[in-house]
Order: sequence, then structure tokens, then C-alpha cells
Amino acid sequence: MAEQPIRYEFIKECKQTGARLGKVHTPHGSFETPVFMPVGTLATVKTMSPEELKAMDAGIILSNTYHLWLRPGQDIVKEAGGLHKFMNWDRAILTDSGGFQVFSLSKFRNIEEEGVHFRNHLNGDKLFLSPEKAMEIQNALGSDIMMAFDECPPYPAEYDYMKRSVERTSRWAERCLNAHNRQDEQGLFGIVQGGEYEDLRTQSAKDLISLDFPGYAIGGLSVGEPKDVMNRVLEFTTPLLPKDKPRYLMGVGSPDALIDGAIRGVDMFDCVLPTRIARNGTVFTAEGRLNMKNAKFERDFRPIDEECDCYTCKNYTRAYIRHLIRCNETFGLRLTTYHNLHFLLHLMEQVRQAIREDRLGDFREEFFERYGYNKPNAKSF
Amino acid sequence: MAEQPIRYEFIKECKQTGARLGKVHTPHGSFETPVFMPVGTLATVKTMSPEELKAMDAGIILSNTYHLWLRPGQDIVKEAGGLHKFMNWDRAILTDSGGFQVFSLSKFRNIEEEGVHFRNHLNGDKLFLSPEKAMEIQNALGSDIMMAFDECPPYPAEYDYMKRSVERTSRWAERCLNAHNRQDEQGLFGIVQGGEYEDLRTQSAKDLISLDFPGYAIGGLSVGEPKDVMNRVLEFTTPLLPKDKPRYLMGVGSPDALIDGAIRGVDMFDCVLPTRIARNGTVFTAEGRLNMKNAKFERDFRPIDEECDCYTCKNYTRAYIRHLIRCNETFGLRLTTYHNLHFLLHLMEQVRQAIREDRLGDFREEFFERYGYNKPNAKSF
Ligand SMILES: [Zn+2]
Ligand SMILES: [Zn+2]
Repeated sequence: MAEQPIRYEFIKECKQTGARLGKVHTPHGSFETPVFMPVGTLATVKTMSPEELKAMDAGIILSNTYHLWLRPGQDIVKEAGGLHKFMNWDRAILTDSGGFQVFSLSKFRNIEEEGVHFRNHLNGDKLFLSPEKAMEIQNALGSDIMMAFDECPPYPAEYDYMKRSVERTSRWAERCLNAHNRQDEQGLFGIVQGGEYEDLRTQSAKDLISLDFPGYAIGGLSVGEPKDVMNRVLEFTTPLLPKDKPRYLMGVGSPDALIDGAIRGVDMFDCVLPTRIARNGTVFTAEGRLNMKNAKFERDFRPIDEECDCYTCKNYTRAYIRHLIRCNETFGLRLTTYHNLHFLLHLMEQVRQAIREDRLGDFREEFFERYGYNKPNAKSF
Repeated sequence: MAEQPIRYEFIKECKQTGARLGKVHTPHGSFETPVFMPVGTLATVKTMSPEELKAMDAGIILSNTYHLWLRPGQDIVKEAGGLHKFMNWDRAILTDSGGFQVFSLSKFRNIEEEGVHFRNHLNGDKLFLSPEKAMEIQNALGSDIMMAFDECPPYPAEYDYMKRSVERTSRWAERCLNAHNRQDEQGLFGIVQGGEYEDLRTQSAKDLISLDFPGYAIGGLSVGEPKDVMNRVLEFTTPLLPKDKPRYLMGVGSPDALIDGAIRGVDMFDCVLPTRIARNGTVFTAEGRLNMKNAKFERDFRPIDEECDCYTCKNYTRAYIRHLIRCNETFGLRLTTYHNLHFLLHLMEQVRQAIREDRLGDFREEFFERYGYNKPNAKSF
């Protein structure tokens, strides 16, 4: 096999927490980790332009194999010159495998060793996704980082079910590796499953590491389990993973989980949360979430967050944003989306700086206190 | 009265057509005419940012008094420091009087000499708009150009009805002038009415000119009449207006009507057409309109218009835009809106250049031929 297109450069560990500062090199540029990846489901990060994502220093975005398979179809993306060219994004792209959508969006599915039969969530058509098909689609899309096709068990799942699922995911991972036919241009990550069972996580990690992927994801978290379960699983899972490869925690994007994940050795995160809540008018601030639809912002001429230096906060007031969202004006959603993505990207910049200065534990305490996570009955928001 | 805040500078007349090249000076900068003004109904040009409007060289936008009166309310805009500051737009703004919306959106209305009783189109609440109220709102908004509150008769209207309406509009114009209390900062334009009756247009123009407005609009056109009626009315109306004041044809934005209006001596135009059709996926090109939803664009990797140098056409293909619009992705509407506004602003730039070179008649012929207006049964599109 030729040199891996994805390479992880370790920079330093935070003496206070053990969090890792690093850099991931891809065929479309490098980015520092821990990193948050905005989600561009259908070859667009909802409401944003590529230039706006660059202005907020996004180095990598995520896009969804399942959705692009259905619309516009990977052949069209390939004919356009690949996903980067199709959507005018020349930095790194990670595509998921489609597995999560098959298991979460589709009501009728039949899991076999060969793959999964299910029905399209748009029109009910019968579809079949397998390790080979997931590779074929992702090879056509041309993402920098591809994900192996895994089985995503529900939470909670019985031990025996989970064990069989982990074993199948390992067999599927090997089939993915064999089917991946652009190994010099695209890096394929394996996905460690096993739920909350330490021995199954250990088995899954061992199986996958033997296949020598250039990076590993931790799947099956952020699926409804309590935050302390997620943290405990991370605590016994990340030490199982090679130090010289990036570790990606899938589907995580709340500020507390990003910080707590970094502290447990995670390098990469993605989530629709910042863009999804933005479309409902909800924004992050250093002092917790606000909803811009609230009547109390009617005459509030301050920015969303007085400490934020994003485009939205430099130029627009809460009163204006409230007005736009109340009137269903697209520009309001652009402004809240921009701010939320900037907030998380900036948070990760602060996390990286804190690792550099060996004070991520202190940063966590200060951030949690101001944000409101230390209040009694604080929700994970 | 102090010096007018709105001043028209005549530059030259096209020897081939009589169209005027000029410049309008406002408290928020100057712009060359003939000009197209993008419409920002609710203090936002739908889907666009102010920076994008500047990148396409928009020098003035229009906003709607009626809509801003209802949401967020002119008091909030005033408290924010005026409409320019509220929406982060530091170039010129024109606000209409609300009259058109009262007559077009509201089903229940009662026109009296004092003003118009009607019901809010959002929730049915009773409202009352009068010349004084329209001035109060526009003074609070702080637009550079305000419009007098006029009666907008339906098309077609009987001569007697139109005559009474014209006379009332003249009395209302005088009341507007008396109620306008920021005469040093905002210019108030009168609106010439009279339908297709030349003697009524003449009377209306004479009445208004005696009040010495810094600019005059031509109202009651683009309300469903055939294109040749519009052109004929313009032909006998613009010569009635002072040469040293700008002339504004309200509600016109199709390429043919912009060119034909300029040829008949109009300086300013506005219309929701380019932004409205963009949200349906329809775009202007040098060779006529296209709808990006059409299946034939599925694998069309050309820009919308190969001759266009706008942001959309420089970076995105028809296939990508079709995909976005089919998936209801906001970024698709941003791209079509950007292109359509750029198309009309660029068209007006070409019109001004043709006036400079005394060849607007030739330009019209070439443009109409390529766009398809010369085809049999061509619609006004
Ligand atoms: Zn901000
Ligand atoms: Zn264009």
C-alpha cells in the first residue's frame, strides 16, 4: 500500500488533562486538532457559503454519503469532478458511510451479512447498502476521509446483540478496506463500536487496528445515553487507539461534550447541532444558549454575544436578528448559523490554546461555570 | 426650506433614443442612473447580505413602509438608529409610502379624505394609514428617499374615478409635504397618477410640480396593463416632468421594461421580480429565462450564464444549483438571487454605457433579439 493520504502529526499533550494537540494532513490541506467539523449534509453547510466557512477558519467539513447517494447521486458528483469541485470547497471533506442514516432514517430495514436492505426515506424505494457500495459511493465523491460502513446498534442494546454487531462491523471494515479503490487519494477510517461494554470496545478496537486504518472513529455514542456514560466509554476507549492516528467522536457538538471529549483524547468531532438550532433561532453564548425569538430581545441592541468577534456579532443586533427570524427571513438564519459555527470553531481554538498552555482543566471549569453547566439540573445543551 | 438632500445631476442624453444618463446624490452616497433598486421588503433583500449587494454595485435599495410599520415597528427601527443602522446598509435607501400595499394586500379598506381604513394582512387588525402617518413612519425609518402617500387605483379604472383619485393624491401629496419633518435629511418624492389618461397625467404632474418635490415617481403602471400601454403612458408622462429631477417608475423589473423605460426618460426602477423568481429557481440569462429545476440541467456543468461574471457564475454549475434547489437548500436560493440581481444591475450598467455612446437603440435591438423578445408571441418576461 502506498503512503496514507491522511497523516496525524502529534504536537503535544496537555499536562493538566492529557488532551492532545495535533494536526491532520489531508490531500486538501491541514487542520489543527481537536477540531469541530461543520456538517454539510447535501453538499452545502445549510445557509452558508464556502467563503463564510473559510472566514471562520473551518479546515474540514463533513458531508453525508447516504443523502448524496440519493440526491444528486454520486455519478453526477463524480462527473462534476468530485465533491470538492461540485460544491466549490477546496479544503478537506470527510464523508460518513451512510450507515447511521440507514439505521436512523429508515423504518423498514433488514440487516444481513451482505449488507442492509431498507427503504429510501424520501419515496420509499427499496435500496441496498453494503460495505462495497459505501466505498463505491465515497470513492466517487472523492472525500479526503471516508468512513467504513458499520452497523449502528440502538441504545441501549443487549450484550449478545452488541457482540454480534461488533463482530459484523469488523468483518464489514475489512470488506471496506478491500473495496476501497483510491487508497492513494482518500483515507479510510474504521469505526469502533461496542456500546458501553468495555470488552466489546476492546475487541472492536483490536480488530480494526489489525487492519491498520489511518484513523479511527468512536461510534455508537451521542445516541441518547447520559453524558457520564459517554465520558466513561471514552475513558476506556481512547487508550485502546494508536497514538499516531486521529480519533473521531461521531455526532457530538454541544460545548460541554466537545471539551470533555478533548480531555479524553478525542481529536475530531462533528454535529448538526449548531446549524440545526440556529434555524430555530437558538444561539450559543459564553453564558449559555439564547433563543432570538424571545420577546425580550425586541429592543435589545446588543450583539448576540458581546465577546464574539464573528461577522454576525460585529454587525447586527439581537433586535434585528429577532425581527428577521420572526419574519422567516433567510438572512436571519444565515446570521445565527454563522454565529453558532463560529462559536464552536472558536471554542476549539480556545481548547487548543489551553492544551498548548497545559490548562485545559482550568479552561473547562471557567467555561462550564459561565455557560451554566454547573447549575443544579443543568441539561446537556 | 434648506437645500434638498436629494439632488439630480444630469450627465448626458443618448442621441439615438433620448434616454438620460445622470447621477443621484443622497445623504448616503451617489449612484448613476438609470438605476435598478433591489427590494428589501422587511429590512433585508431576501437571502442577501449587505456585502453581497455592494459586491454587485447596488447603490440604493428599496424597503417597504407598510411591512416595517407592522414588523418590527418604526419605533424599534428608530431606536436602533434608523433603518440604515438597523440593517447594516450604509448606502442609499428609498422607502415606499405603504399606499401600494394597503391597496393590494388588504381586502377590507375604506378610503376617506383623511386616509385609508383597512385590515392588517397578517392578523386582520384594524389599521389606518394617512399622509401624515406615512410621513411619520418614514421619518422614523430615516430613508434617504421617501414616497408620498398616494391612492393606487385599480387597472383599468373609469375616467371619473381616476380623476377624483388624481385630485385626492395631489391633496395628499401636499399634506405629506407639510407633515414631513426631516426635510434636511430625507427627500420626499411625489407620485404622478392618472392611469392611461393623458390629461389626468398632465393634471397630476402639474399639481405635484407646483409643490416642488426633489423627484417624481410614475405610479399606477406595471399593474397588469399591456406593455404598449405602459410605454405610451411613459411617452406622454416623462416629458411633463422637470429635467433636473429624477424620475422613478415604480414596480418595474423585467429586462425589456427596464430598457424601454430608460429610453422613455426614466431614471429609477424597482421590482421584486428578480428576487421572487430566483426563489422559484428561475434565472435571467442573455438568452432568456431558465428554470434551474428543469431535469435537463441535471448534468449541465456550465454556469447559469457563460457571459456572466457574478459570484454564482464564477463558482457554481447549473447541476449544483439544480441539486440545491431540488433539495430546498437555502444556498441555492442565495446563488440564484445573487445572479438575478447582478444580471439586472449589470444590464443597467450596459444601458448607461450605451447612453454614453449614443447607441441605446442598437443595444435594445441586440438585447431583445438574443433574449427572445422579438419572437412571435413573446411574453413580457
Ligand atoms: Zn458571534
Ligand atoms: Zn451570474
